[in-house]
Amino acid sequence: MAVEATTSARRKVVIVGGGFAGLTAATKLAKADVDVTVLDRHNYHCFQPLLYQVATAELSPADIAWPIRHVLRRQKNARVLLGDVTAIDVEGRKVVADTGTFEFDELILATGARHSYFGNDDWEKSAPGLKRIEDATIIRRRLLMAFERAELSENPAERESLLTFAIVGAGPTGVELAGAIIEVARQVMPSEFRHIDPRTARVILIEAGPRVLPAFPEALTDYTRRSLEKMGVEVMTDTRVTHVDDKGVDLANGRLDAATVIWAAGVIASPAGRWLGAETDRAGRVIVQPNLTVPGHENIFVVGDTATAKRPDGQDVPGVAPAKQMGAYVADVIASRVRGAVPPPAFHYRHQGDVATIGRRSAVIKMPYMNLTGFTAWLVWCVAHIYFLIGARNRIAVAFKWVWDFMTFQRGARLITDQRDQI
Amino acid sequence: MAVEATTSARRKVVIVGGGFAGLTAATKLAKADVDVTVLDRHNYHCFQPLLYQVATAELSPADIAWPIRHVLRRQKNARVLLGDVTAIDVEGRKVVADTGTFEFDELILATGARHSYFGNDDWEKSAPGLKRIEDATIIRRRLLMAFERAELSENPAERESLLTFAIVGAGPTGVELAGAIIEVARQVMPSEFRHIDPRTARVILIEAGPRVLPAFPEALTDYTRRSLEKMGVEVMTDTRVTHVDDKGVDLANGRLDAATVIWAAGVIASPAGRWLGAETDRAGRVIVQPNLTVPGHENIFVVGDTATAKRPDGQDVPGVAPAKQMGAYVADVIASRVRGAVPPPAFHYRHQGDVATIGRRSAVIKMPYMNLTGFTAWLVWCVAHIYFLIGARNRIAVAFKWVWDFMTFQRGARLITDQRDQI
Repeated sequence: MAVEATTSARRKVVIVGGGFAGLTAATKLAKADVDVTVLDRHNYHCFQPLLYQVATAELSPADIAWPIRHVLRRQKNARVLLGDVTAIDVEGRKVVADTGTFEFDELILATGARHSYFGNDDWEKSAPGLKRIEDATIIRRRLLMAFERAELSENPAERESLLTFAIVGAGPTGVELAGAIIEVARQVMPSEFRHIDPRTARVILIEAGPRVLPAFPEALTDYTRRSLEKMGVEVMTDTRVTHVDDKGVDLANGRLDAATVIWAAGVIASPAGRWLGAETDRAGRVIVQPNLTVPGHENIFVVGDTATAKRPDGQDVPGVAPAKQMGAYVADVIASRVRGAVPPPAFHYRHQGDVATIGRRSAVIKMPYMNLTGFTAWLVWCVAHIYFLIGARNRIAVAFKWVWDFMTFQRGARLITDQRDQI
Repeated sequence: MAVEATTSARRKVVIVGGGFAGLTAATKLAKADVDVTVLDRHNYHCFQPLLYQVATAELSPADIAWPIRHVLRRQKNARVLLGDVTAIDVEGRKVVADTGTFEFDELILATGARHSYFGNDDWEKSAPGLKRIEDATIIRRRLLMAFERAELSENPAERESLLTFAIVGAGPTGVELAGAIIEVARQVMPSEFRHIDPRTARVILIEAGPRVLPAFPEALTDYTRRSLEKMGVEVMTDTRVTHVDDKGVDLANGRLDAATVIWAAGVIASPAGRWLGAETDRAGRVIVQPNLTVPGHENIFVVGDTATAKRPDGQDVPGVAPAKQMGAYVADVIASRVRGAVPPPAFHYRHQGDVATIGRRSAVIKMPYMNLTGFTAWLVWCVAHIYFLIGARNRIAVAFKWVWDFMTFQRGARLITDQRDQI
């Protein structure tokens, strides 16, 4: 019966991707006279800003992920289906996935981005990035296994390499990982090991450019660097990585032995541009029109990290906030068309701020009219992230864990699951 | 330096396995003048009685598992090492693991049990059992994927098979899984699907013997069966499974198509008996002396699910409570020997009761002098399980999730992670 409903005369809107952009578009279409299908290769929406806390054993995956169909359960015009998109038939108006073929009248592609190794894809095996739940549990396993293997090792050089953690890229993710890992080493682990002293672990943040958090004002950059260094992180700017393997990284100025390397250096958009045969920028993002449609296809929208829209001043608009704003804007365009109303003018991006945590009581926040640093910024960060989580259950559970672990210096999700790599 | 300490003249006690038996033995040796090494192939202690709640998406793995080295962090005479034991050199007094070789003066083997397929090991791929965290996430993935695939299917027979869940074995684990899965189907899922009606899902509990919960008194058995049937579970007793494959099970009285089959029918001990060359019973458990040592080796103890000790009345002593009691008893024996005191008399088992939950407000409890059923039993069960969890953080987090989900009919950990099997 439900099948019949979806083959009704109502306009079919297919949304590929249940991240911030796709999910916002879906919920904003709740009152429109359309049939919405959300396709995602996972059954959950993942709150990416807190992925680094899963990677560093503070939160469990389920704390920051929520089934997409649960979020949309009361939205009767929406259905949610699992599917990994492989192609798009632009002329025939069909999305082809591994689970079936789905017709659309309007298509919203919100398929996000992956990390980019700048042409060295073989580095991924040695230096995982952090975009998905699976990435986070891989990094968590390597981080925890490094301490376990060091405790077992009788070879000083091996032990030193095992206790060296290299993070490539000093954007917000790199900074947050570096801060969290040094805290694990210096605050969580020391009482639990007998053979090694986890406090001797080195955490090295490597950045090709001249400063950390390049998208932030210089004052916040300087503050962040000083804070990280005070915590014990070694910050290497102007340092290019020329090779990555299982045993460490080659830097322009020498070799660094490190059993754990994490990649936070660059992103590349999903293959949406290739599916569409559309023009993309160097990062693979589809270059969209002012109304976020693909040139020549007024019924195909690309939003979030997989699109590039220029601001009025010509600058790119990256990040989380635009994903939600883009999703909402596109839903508005479609709803207007269905109602026969005039669609809203060109997408206009309102920048709401940039934020990065440095450690358990420090953060930096850049807002339009002011900057915040230190404990105040950290408190604002905590409240904002709790607020943006989906569902009261997750909000309460995460808030409880943060308060608890803040007071006890513990980490609550220190499980090494699945294969242990080889030991 | 720590290495030197462990090669001191103090007696070396090696404990293999960080489950209930091994962990209890380790903590009870805190004040003894010995060096304790706990070896486990995982870095965590898993609270097995709640594994079924991870398998049915109520709790996250980290809610019921805690790093062993965290539990023992303040016990200065204990170290914890990761290692998968492959052999034991009984004469040379060495444990051989993939991570190294460890000398012992006294050895405690607490290596647990796995599920047994009664010689049909190829059934495991189709019908996973539930003994480890990894088992639980495999079952969770299959359970959730079955609903997702049914929602996508256009084939009525396939849909029916996808919505059929067969559980083989009606001991406590089978009963608890059956109750939890029917609740997921009838209470959690219905509002979220458009194409299928999850309430039509069949949950079938298959038992070769004449009744469910065979270790319980008949009155509790009858109560449990009636309760399950009222919830919608189909209970098939006196029904032997003769074959299992990816599409279902062959029963003595016919074929049952079921995309999801879970095995809760039997256990076999770890290979400890083989490592030792010791006599074992049919379930592979080492037949130990009254003081839980292996015949001919007064310094090698076997405890928990991998040992069989007879009660004074000749009956076996299985289950969780004996694991802890055995671990504590063996620690007492070793501590007495080290002090030069008289070791305690033969291990004496105090039976503390059997318990199984049936659903979200019902349980059965068998205690020495009374039985409990229904809501009262369920409340006692909840309180007891919160109490036995390790760490206040987990206790509070689990209690919160239970209260929340009890009130909202939700499940908080509905993530399909890792490979999705094929769709």
